[in-house]
Amino acid sequence: MTDRDYYVDVPLRWSDMDAYAHVNNVQFLRLLEDARVVAIREWLGEREDMLRTGVLVARHEIEYLAPLDFRPAPVRIFMWTKAIGGANFDIGYDVCDPDDIGTTTYARAETTLVAYDFASASPRRLSADERAALAEHAGGPVGFRRRLR
Amino acid sequence: MTDRDYYVDVPLRWSDMDAYAHVNNVQFLRLLEDARVVAIREWLGEREDMLRTGVLVARHEIEYLAPLDFRPAPVRIFMWTKAIGGANFDIGYDVCDPDDIGTTTYARAETTLVAYDFASASPRRLSADERAALAEHAGGPVGFRRRLR
Amino acid sequence: MTDRDYYVDVPLRWSDMDAYAHVNNVQFLRLLEDARVVAIREWLGEREDMLRTGVLVARHEIEYLAPLDFRPAPVRIFMWTKAIGGANFDIGYDVCDPDDIGTTTYARAETTLVAYDFASASPRRLSADERAALAEHAGGPVGFRRRLR
Amino acid sequence: MTDRDYYVDVPLRWSDMDAYAHVNNVQFLRLLEDARVVAIREWLGEREDMLRTGVLVARHEIEYLAPLDFRPAPVRIFMWTKAIGGANFDIGYDVCDPDDIGTTTYARAETTLVAYDFASASPRRLSADERAALAEHAGGPVGFRRRLR
Repeated sequence: MTDRDYYVDVPLRWSDMDAYAHVNNVQFLRLLEDARVVAIREWLGEREDMLRTGVLVARHEIEYLAPLDFRPAPVRIFMWTKAIGGANFDIGYDVCDPDDIGTTTYARAETTLVAYDFASASPRRLSADERAALAEHAGGPVGFRRRLR
Repeated sequence: MTDRDYYVDVPLRWSDMDAYAHVNNVQFLRLLEDARVVAIREWLGEREDMLRTGVLVARHEIEYLAPLDFRPAPVRIFMWTKAIGGANFDIGYDVCDPDDIGTTTYARAETTLVAYDFASASPRRLSADERAALAEHAGGPVGFRRRLR
Repeated sequence: MTDRDYYVDVPLRWSDMDAYAHVNNVQFLRLLEDARVVAIREWLGEREDMLRTGVLVARHEIEYLAPLDFRPAPVRIFMWTKAIGGANFDIGYDVCDPDDIGTTTYARAETTLVAYDFASASPRRLSADERAALAEHAGGPVGFRRRLR
Repeated sequence: MTDRDYYVDVPLRWSDMDAYAHVNNVQFLRLLEDARVVAIREWLGEREDMLRTGVLVARHEIEYLAPLDFRPAPVRIFMWTKAIGGANFDIGYDVCDPDDIGTTTYARAETTLVAYDFASASPRRLSADERAALAEHAGGPVGFRRRLR
């Protein structure tokens, strides 16, 4: 697959704007959260509800490429999996316009998630089944500009 | 100086908790925002009000080390500058407990900021004076665990 | 018309839940805000963009009738105008399920809005045209349970 | 007592501002939430932790009197109890400046709270002890301008 095979459209809220009248940089992470909740349910939901079992955020990295103004149209958030490990995996994101709206990429991001067992309050191993389901959505590295330093 | 010379205490809000009853991972970025607004005013405020001139967030990276429960006590956010360039600089953060509360580090993070001229809608160069002021708070790299990949 | 002639469907966000794992009471006002932004643009947009001219919130009243769990389906927010005055008007709301989801009413609310001229920083009179446009969506009083005290 | 005997100072966050660069009307309810969490713990905490037993919001009413700009100083939120019933009570609020900052009242509000037993998922009666504790903070009606209609 390519990194553009799976996406979720997330509507903006008027309150996503900050005092500069652009969508606030922290709210981008909020938009990613909503897209990720849908993706994980769709990717893993028939196997096991990882949102309940569940999954913890261990790391975020995000790069902002263009200012995003509030508008009725949603943002299209492409997502793919990366670096599927024993108990954790990464999700890559491109935050873009829907096809009929434009061609801007507003942000690129990456989240490391850890499978977690709330009952024992500790990380747990991903099952072979979960790893296979995540691998179906595997894509390449996020195209960060500033990574190497 | 060391990375522990400057900090801002940021109070939590009850609403920082999500459905897991911990402070939500995105809200950590919100806490960093509030600490950063104070830091930039204190570091650069007597020279020029960069919050108005102003400054844009170009990048965030954050690693979560321990769950944070809601409590009346604030979090202590240590901050220092890094990689001061022509038009941009980085801020490093450690999100910790105040001394009388505990010794946990909850998160480490880094933000790249770009000096911006709203009138011309374009990045602007940092003045020598601003660079000197930021250099007074220079510290080392953020102690990320997962950076090298 | 009846109070059920106009509605906006507003999607929930995972972060609308609080530590009780229900949609937080304050977030209901956030949902109303998003529905209202759409309604005012649709009701008055061809005449004058009141969101820019603009409009200020002078008052909210809200009554919660049933807990709302997070779900993929949006809430359906019915809206109508009330008490159209010289410089202000009220909006009534019923926060419900879409038809195919259920029949619960989660909240009832009312907002008083004031037409405002940002240039002169003072309230302004609604034009005859605006009053006529708002009157097309006039409905009855909000069915609050606890109003008379 | 008078309505000015008890208050909680709540710090603002930069993100409380909306695209109009004032503290957003919905965020006022967020500020009330934080003040109320402190008040209920202080008023009832030694008897029973109502935040866990707990307490649900049944109703809010709020009137905005003056725009609030972001500033380092907190808002001072005066609170008192009203209409203490079998299973519910009201809290009145005045959102003001601390003494050394100014004399503006930004908003007046009222919340109806219902004592709730999460184990049985139903309202519960306030104990005589709780009612006495709440009565120690009893005050008069909120000075709403627009109530009678």
